[in-house]
Amino acid sequence: MATINDIAAKLGVSKSTVSKALNNATDISEEMRKRILETAVELGYVNRRLQKKEKKLCILVANMDYDTPNQFGYDIVIGFKQMAEPEGWTIDTIPLTKEFQRLTPYGVFMMEHGYQAAFVMGFSLLDPWIEEFRTTRIPTVLYDNYVKDNPHVASIGCDSQEGFNLAVRHLVKLGHKKIGLISGPLDSYILKARYNAYLNALNKYGLEINENYIGLGYYVAESTKTYIPKLLKEGVTAILFSHDIRAISAITECIDRDINVPNDLSIIGFDDLPIATQADPPLTTIRQDRIALGKCGYYAMTCLLNQVPIGSILLRAPLIVRESTGPVPAWSDNGTFPSL
Amino acid sequence: MATINDIAAKLGVSKSTVSKALNNATDISEEMRKRILETAVELGYVNRRLQKKEKKLCILVANMDYDTPNQFGYDIVIGFKQMAEPEGWTIDTIPLTKEFQRLTPYGVFMMEHGYQAAFVMGFSLLDPWIEEFRTTRIPTVLYDNYVKDNPHVASIGCDSQEGFNLAVRHLVKLGHKKIGLISGPLDSYILKARYNAYLNALNKYGLEINENYIGLGYYVAESTKTYIPKLLKEGVTAILFSHDIRAISAITECIDRDINVPNDLSIIGFDDLPIATQADPPLTTIRQDRIALGKCGYYAMTCLLNQVPIGSILLRAPLIVRESTGPVPAWSDNGTFPSL
Repeated sequence: MATINDIAAKLGVSKSTVSKALNNATDISEEMRKRILETAVELGYVNRRLQKKEKKLCILVANMDYDTPNQFGYDIVIGFKQMAEPEGWTIDTIPLTKEFQRLTPYGVFMMEHGYQAAFVMGFSLLDPWIEEFRTTRIPTVLYDNYVKDNPHVASIGCDSQEGFNLAVRHLVKLGHKKIGLISGPLDSYILKARYNAYLNALNKYGLEINENYIGLGYYVAESTKTYIPKLLKEGVTAILFSHDIRAISAITECIDRDINVPNDLSIIGFDDLPIATQADPPLTTIRQDRIALGKCGYYAMTCLLNQVPIGSILLRAPLIVRESTGPVPAWSDNGTFPSL
Repeated sequence: MATINDIAAKLGVSKSTVSKALNNATDISEEMRKRILETAVELGYVNRRLQKKEKKLCILVANMDYDTPNQFGYDIVIGFKQMAEPEGWTIDTIPLTKEFQRLTPYGVFMMEHGYQAAFVMGFSLLDPWIEEFRTTRIPTVLYDNYVKDNPHVASIGCDSQEGFNLAVRHLVKLGHKKIGLISGPLDSYILKARYNAYLNALNKYGLEINENYIGLGYYVAESTKTYIPKLLKEGVTAILFSHDIRAISAITECIDRDINVPNDLSIIGFDDLPIATQADPPLTTIRQDRIALGKCGYYAMTCLLNQVPIGSILLRAPLIVRESTGPVPAWSDNGTFPSL
């Protein structure tokens, strides 16, 4: 384990300068402080005094809203705090831009603020800190992201495979054979996982896998407009969506085009956002229990803080059947949807 | 939620008789007590009074030894208790035969003893209670077993896929191309998982999958004797084993046959039992950190007891490189091992 002496020796500065930097004293230059913190992180220095003084955690959020109850991240933050606060932790929730991540290394940021562990939400594979998570020694829990082989980093999320298996089983029972997928682009760990879960679920139930049944696109409304008619032309009678937002956009698109959901087309979302019940028809979807996800994040962190090197925790992903799914439509006997 | 009245009505007995049975009073017949408990379980009755009085958990063990430090289950039990006892739980560790499971349903057993949750170790798919785990409403954590869709049951274990990926990567770096598997029969969830992990790992590294490189058998010594020469004849230069015990039996077999480990054949175990370091040569193996597994079992149980419906927790499975693996042998240039 590196000591203050090691840091001082490496930088050729005095022990007291290092000590000042590590304790956020104001009488050294910002530049020197940063160099010392970076070196401390690099050498694997652990600031034990700081850690014992305060129990401080942070929730780091990128690309995700969490301010109001209707936003995806809101309940996750609540669930995490419900478990962590009674155990005496102070928790800061911090939104992060890519810009900020590029300017300050993760390890330096954590040491600067005296955070002992982080719960990380919403990061895409393009976020700069992802690279640092591969090697960090700070207990770090990632929601819907995964880093292999690092015993200090754990992953939590809903079991996409279980969810899609339940969704496809439900559709198969209703007589559907051609099942499509409309999803965001595969630049995130979780969308790749859901894409694979879709393929595995079709495979499990002996259904045809056909790339023409799949639509990937960044922009929600645009890709809905493009893919709904395309998939119907292919004879697809039911579509799984990577998110409720996309599924609900598809319901709107179907109304505009006089396509009846579920009589002409069955639609299944993923998330079970509050808005899912208010859709017309109410959306059949795979639930992510977000309060439970937040709690789960805290349990995973407790494991890491107690040197139990877990890799992942998967939460159950039940299918909530509402009214956007129904029996396979009669038009499918003729191959493609008639009125396109 | 069912009440004492519901149980009494269903059986046509008085409320006080039901109450006696649920409180283990001695003045009713054993037969009546059992019928009442079975009905209580069937109706989903929860004995809240009992639950509040005492914090009681059980560890249920089948097909696994745990009495002495060298036995596989020992450290798992220790790890579990290290987490659970400081939180005020009383823990009974109970070995179970199939016979006992057939005579007493799981739910009845748990209610009879006032256990609020169970940690289940070593069960095979043939153990009678496995069926009940699919539908039970009692928080139940399974080590190395999995039940789908039941939010009251969670699974914990080491990440076989991560372990086998690391093992195959290590062998590929050493130049090996034909990698075999010797495993117990696929009548357990975990051996099926390891079998699939083996296939996936070969696939990931672009290696040949060949059923002649695989040996499955119940009896350790017998299957080692059969498969070591068979796999060498096929040109296999490295073998993964489902357990350290099998890998160590293979080392012994190789000594008897004048096959040098690792110069003629590389061997990798799974478990990292204390005995792995004492083998000659010391065994390269995938570690199951058993203290951490026990702790993990308790964390999973805490999740279930707090209505966080996790499905699984996977622990990291690091590769511990010792001396039973080495560079691909020169004999492999000629296809099969010469002296068989």
